[in-house]
Amino acid sequence: VEDRVPVGLVGLGRMGDFHATNLAGRIRLAHLVRIVDADEGIVRDVSGRLGGIEWSTDYADLLNDPGIEAVVIASPTPLHADMIEAAAGAGKHVFCEKPISLEMESTFGAIEAARKAGIKLQVGFHRRFDPDYRRAWQRVEAGEIGEVYLFRTSLRDMQAPGFDYIKGSGGFFADVTLHDFDAARWLVGEIEEVTAFGAALSDPGGFEEVDDIDNAVVALRFASGALGVIDNSRVAGYGYECSSEIMGSKATLRVDNHRRASVETLTPDSSHRDYVSDFVERFADAYVAGLESFLRTVREDRDPEVSGADAAAAFVLAKAAEHSYREGRTVRLTSETKNGEVFYREAD
Amino acid sequence: VEDRVPVGLVGLGRMGDFHATNLAGRIRLAHLVRIVDADEGIVRDVSGRLGGIEWSTDYADLLNDPGIEAVVIASPTPLHADMIEAAAGAGKHVFCEKPISLEMESTFGAIEAARKAGIKLQVGFHRRFDPDYRRAWQRVEAGEIGEVYLFRTSLRDMQAPGFDYIKGSGGFFADVTLHDFDAARWLVGEIEEVTAFGAALSDPGGFEEVDDIDNAVVALRFASGALGVIDNSRVAGYGYECSSEIMGSKATLRVDNHRRASVETLTPDSSHRDYVSDFVERFADAYVAGLESFLRTVREDRDPEVSGADAAAAFVLAKAAEHSYREGRTVRLTSETKNGEVFYREAD
Amino acid sequence: VEDRVPVGLVGLGRMGDFHATNLAGRIRLAHLVRIVDADEGIVRDVSGRLGGIEWSTDYADLLNDPGIEAVVIASPTPLHADMIEAAAGAGKHVFCEKPISLEMESTFGAIEAARKAGIKLQVGFHRRFDPDYRRAWQRVEAGEIGEVYLFRTSLRDMQAPGFDYIKGSGGFFADVTLHDFDAARWLVGEIEEVTAFGAALSDPGGFEEVDDIDNAVVALRFASGALGVIDNSRVAGYGYECSSEIMGSKATLRVDNHRRASVETLTPDSSHRDYVSDFVERFADAYVAGLESFLRTVREDRDPEVSGADAAAAFVLAKAAEHSYREGRTVRLTSETKNGEVFYREAD
Amino acid sequence: VEDRVPVGLVGLGRMGDFHATNLAGRIRLAHLVRIVDADEGIVRDVSGRLGGIEWSTDYADLLNDPGIEAVVIASPTPLHADMIEAAAGAGKHVFCEKPISLEMESTFGAIEAARKAGIKLQVGFHRRFDPDYRRAWQRVEAGEIGEVYLFRTSLRDMQAPGFDYIKGSGGFFADVTLHDFDAARWLVGEIEEVTAFGAALSDPGGFEEVDDIDNAVVALRFASGALGVIDNSRVAGYGYECSSEIMGSKATLRVDNHRRASVETLTPDSSHRDYVSDFVERFADAYVAGLESFLRTVREDRDPEVSGADAAAAFVLAKAAEHSYREGRTVRLTSETKNGEVFYREAD
Repeated sequence: VEDRVPVGLVGLGRMGDFHATNLAGRIRLAHLVRIVDADEGIVRDVSGRLGGIEWSTDYADLLNDPGIEAVVIASPTPLHADMIEAAAGAGKHVFCEKPISLEMESTFGAIEAARKAGIKLQVGFHRRFDPDYRRAWQRVEAGEIGEVYLFRTSLRDMQAPGFDYIKGSGGFFADVTLHDFDAARWLVGEIEEVTAFGAALSDPGGFEEVDDIDNAVVALRFASGALGVIDNSRVAGYGYECSSEIMGSKATLRVDNHRRASVETLTPDSSHRDYVSDFVERFADAYVAGLESFLRTVREDRDPEVSGADAAAAFVLAKAAEHSYREGRTVRLTSETKNGEVFYREAD
Repeated sequence: VEDRVPVGLVGLGRMGDFHATNLAGRIRLAHLVRIVDADEGIVRDVSGRLGGIEWSTDYADLLNDPGIEAVVIASPTPLHADMIEAAAGAGKHVFCEKPISLEMESTFGAIEAARKAGIKLQVGFHRRFDPDYRRAWQRVEAGEIGEVYLFRTSLRDMQAPGFDYIKGSGGFFADVTLHDFDAARWLVGEIEEVTAFGAALSDPGGFEEVDDIDNAVVALRFASGALGVIDNSRVAGYGYECSSEIMGSKATLRVDNHRRASVETLTPDSSHRDYVSDFVERFADAYVAGLESFLRTVREDRDPEVSGADAAAAFVLAKAAEHSYREGRTVRLTSETKNGEVFYREAD
Repeated sequence: VEDRVPVGLVGLGRMGDFHATNLAGRIRLAHLVRIVDADEGIVRDVSGRLGGIEWSTDYADLLNDPGIEAVVIASPTPLHADMIEAAAGAGKHVFCEKPISLEMESTFGAIEAARKAGIKLQVGFHRRFDPDYRRAWQRVEAGEIGEVYLFRTSLRDMQAPGFDYIKGSGGFFADVTLHDFDAARWLVGEIEEVTAFGAALSDPGGFEEVDDIDNAVVALRFASGALGVIDNSRVAGYGYECSSEIMGSKATLRVDNHRRASVETLTPDSSHRDYVSDFVERFADAYVAGLESFLRTVREDRDPEVSGADAAAAFVLAKAAEHSYREGRTVRLTSETKNGEVFYREAD
Repeated sequence: VEDRVPVGLVGLGRMGDFHATNLAGRIRLAHLVRIVDADEGIVRDVSGRLGGIEWSTDYADLLNDPGIEAVVIASPTPLHADMIEAAAGAGKHVFCEKPISLEMESTFGAIEAARKAGIKLQVGFHRRFDPDYRRAWQRVEAGEIGEVYLFRTSLRDMQAPGFDYIKGSGGFFADVTLHDFDAARWLVGEIEEVTAFGAALSDPGGFEEVDDIDNAVVALRFASGALGVIDNSRVAGYGYECSSEIMGSKATLRVDNHRRASVETLTPDSSHRDYVSDFVERFADAYVAGLESFLRTVREDRDPEVSGADAAAAFVLAKAAEHSYREGRTVRLTSETKNGEVFYREAD
């Protein structure tokens, strides 16, 4: 069926496996041509499960295949920037999991390489493609809530990952708060001030050793004057949470869908609603919609809905939060528009 | 990708179009080979939208194609039974939209033809594949609610279809209540008594002319002794509704997901939650899951989760409801098991 | 404070104790002058708890006290009718717990005695005074939901009372369904047909011995043509339930407040909302409002919001349900208006 | 009835009127002896509505009445401190609406006067007596949520009061956030750091003229290490809001009861739940419970549940928030215990 986009995918960890399954069977515009992972056992297994799709252990096989138009990068974060640059060199469009890099320089390097090569570069901020968040965003855009006065958002995990992961995560703000910075910019607009508060509460000694935290509150001031507040936790004992509130002069929107709202169990003590199991289940449709959006971007030759510059903006804001937290002060930011994209930096 | 099931589809009305889109892009186990509709304009359009899939206007083209293993029948109801028999004759497995027929005889004829030909015959009761209903069903099966005492279910539409549709619909109970009879049997068990009450309230004259009703209440007594009650409406002014309650000795389950529970809009008067737009949106995942189940049934050579006999059972119960309503009496039913399937008939 | 109504109360069981506490401290228009119970220990205790209010063990002390204007009767049901007649003889207004009697004759006798004596007689159907039900009722009255097509209501208890209670209860329909018949008449209008289905499921042997049931479904047809359905249980394992739905041509109303909606506990498995503990907590405001309404009726000399005739109507309907259940047929009813009140009887 | 507490009330504005009605009819332990307001027309009216209760226009009449044991002060804030001191001089127990004063010195002066006179002094933080908040508090106290990691709370009004009110309000933080500081201390514990962010968004010019704001976010660090965040608004267009979340290591509690959860209206577009009309309706039971608690404190000679020192603590924290906001810095606080009470001050 001729209008499909031939896609190659690299990286078969949890997200890569999920993307591969979606590309193989749930996304009409995708033709998954080949999957790559450094671990031959894993890539063989996934290929078998997906009906015998072609596979290899070398990323170059994707780039050298003239039949492949776009690559999906789901490899470990330290490889992202180089893989984007290589794909740009080979003229392949790129969908890359967030973040592009834990370093500012390579983040901007990859964005610039993509721009010069004229390829599409989309970054995986899934919340932008969630049907519920999109509905809220459309209402804000349509002016239904009036002027925005306050943005409040919570992103929490149930249990901290191991300290090995945390050490390589780029720090709490880059690993967790990053998503909320992107949501804040998307739903409300550009940010001028960030003040962050953090604490290591579940295992103070362990977190001190890796110089990181497990809970944070971040206050925002938007360019519009609106206030914002983010709360994040790695150790919200009850489970995963992603919910937001946008308070406006005329109405207020809330997005919250942690609970399986449609099945209620009534027992002698109380009524219960189960949770969705995790963010992959919670955002299953969003992951599909994000890839669909990327493939339409390729096929229709238009701008990605979430660009490399958006990824960079969230990253600069996360770094500002970290500076704020470590130095105990409010960090001010400026932004400028280049090539139609917004680029942030800290205003000394 | 070799384990896919080559499928042909006939009938491109609303449901057929929806099934075709799912088979073309959202169901990994499906290889949609060809689509058929009597209207050339429609079938051309859909083919174009699905990337140029093969099409024709003649059902026989599906049956004569040796590469096709299974057919999905979404044509108008009066054609179902003959199309099932023809598919059985050609050795193709069948997924057929409900009901098989508006006549008892052709219903049983089609079931028997499928049995003799040894093909799989699955009928489209989507609620059985809805994730929320399945979760409830699993809990009932696991004994979590104890003994079932009461089953209560509501199926309602916002506006009656035109009288042209109603005249050919087989009557209120066969067109609407049928789904609830299937749900009742699935979630609680076999039914021994049906007492139906009906009324034409929105347009008494119009409904009298077509000898039909627009609202009904049906009381059930299950073989287990449990009581049940169904309420149905074609004119529930607020919108579509499909919700159920299973009350047990230890706990009670409710399934209800009409509202978009995860987005709340707060305005000066009240808080609002929008509805899902209709049953296609409400049960989008269920339709996919139903086809996936059918294709696994074909590939793994096991029994369908919803058989032709299940469709016949719901139909006999719907007819019993109609007799009860017209004659103002309780109708008793008996059932017997043949070839591992349950067959109902009215007692004396 | 001179406009208060001097009140005497008889019967200090659970409801009487609750009414006495409300009359003593929560209802401004009440001046609770004296409490009476046959058991001296109980009446002494309650008097002490209420700050030393006057008490005795003889109902005649209330009637002979010229300072008492109204009596609240919360004694056991078999005493109600005689106590009403005696109060009528003494010229005291009466608020009586439901039902007036388990016999038709004495029910009508008490009503007639009250009418002749010109006293106010109000019966304790608390749902009519519940703020949530009243809000729903006001919307129905205001035409906000259009024409009513369907009324659906559930009244359930968690555990059956002992068989001693059940033997003297007047039977399932008079003891439980009675409340729903009153709600149906209040919210929708007069009823023309009753068809009842019952079952003894939790302890079939025990219930058979007392010739009673523990679960029921009752189908209604209103004079307006609307359909209705009541479900009742004594053994809804999860707990107490009182919820209703009124489906109209323009909108639908639901009343349901079993759960403490404003406190949510999120634990690793699911989110929980506790229940209100029982109907006394659920309807605490309604009991106060019912007595307030009665005292205003006395002080302002107007008709009670729930009259003796309303109590009799619910009782006739409950008996019709029992006849329907026992005889396996639909029971038709007629009603006529006498002295501005509606009186029901079974047709033919 | 002899154990009642004879009470006098001064100030018949909105809250005073509400308290008077409760004391006259809904609180068994209260004997409302006399009401006072400077405006003779108002005090006459209220007296008439309450059945002719004694009244005057002079606060001294309450203090000179030897039959009065306790006074409820609901006069304008600037009068509170002096009235408390006068009541202390007359040996009357005091229930005073918050705040005690807009000045630190007179706040502490009134507290000290009460302490020296040995009278009970309770302050009207109603949230502490709300059944839902109490249930949450009990669970925190019982250790059900484990260690508290995060406290999040929202207090919002729909429309700003006039600028005349705002000018005399003591500023946003003292007028609005004060309640949240009390809730934070009560539910989580003592606070060590306050960082406040404010904005005037609905009418920047108007608010600038009175040197005040209409929206704020306040970040907290508790002595336990937990983080906290308060958001407040005077112009939340959708209406009044008071909701809180306490996130712990084992579970999380949410309190939120803005919506009438038990009545749902389903219309063609969406399902609606109306709001409670305002904080008086929302906290009606809490106001009663607060006065009941105070009267039991008097009768049983125990410590008030919310003391003058609690009021002072919230006030110091509100002032710290204002300093933080105006100076763009985090304000640190220390607290010490004197006479069993906690007293806060800013740390250098």
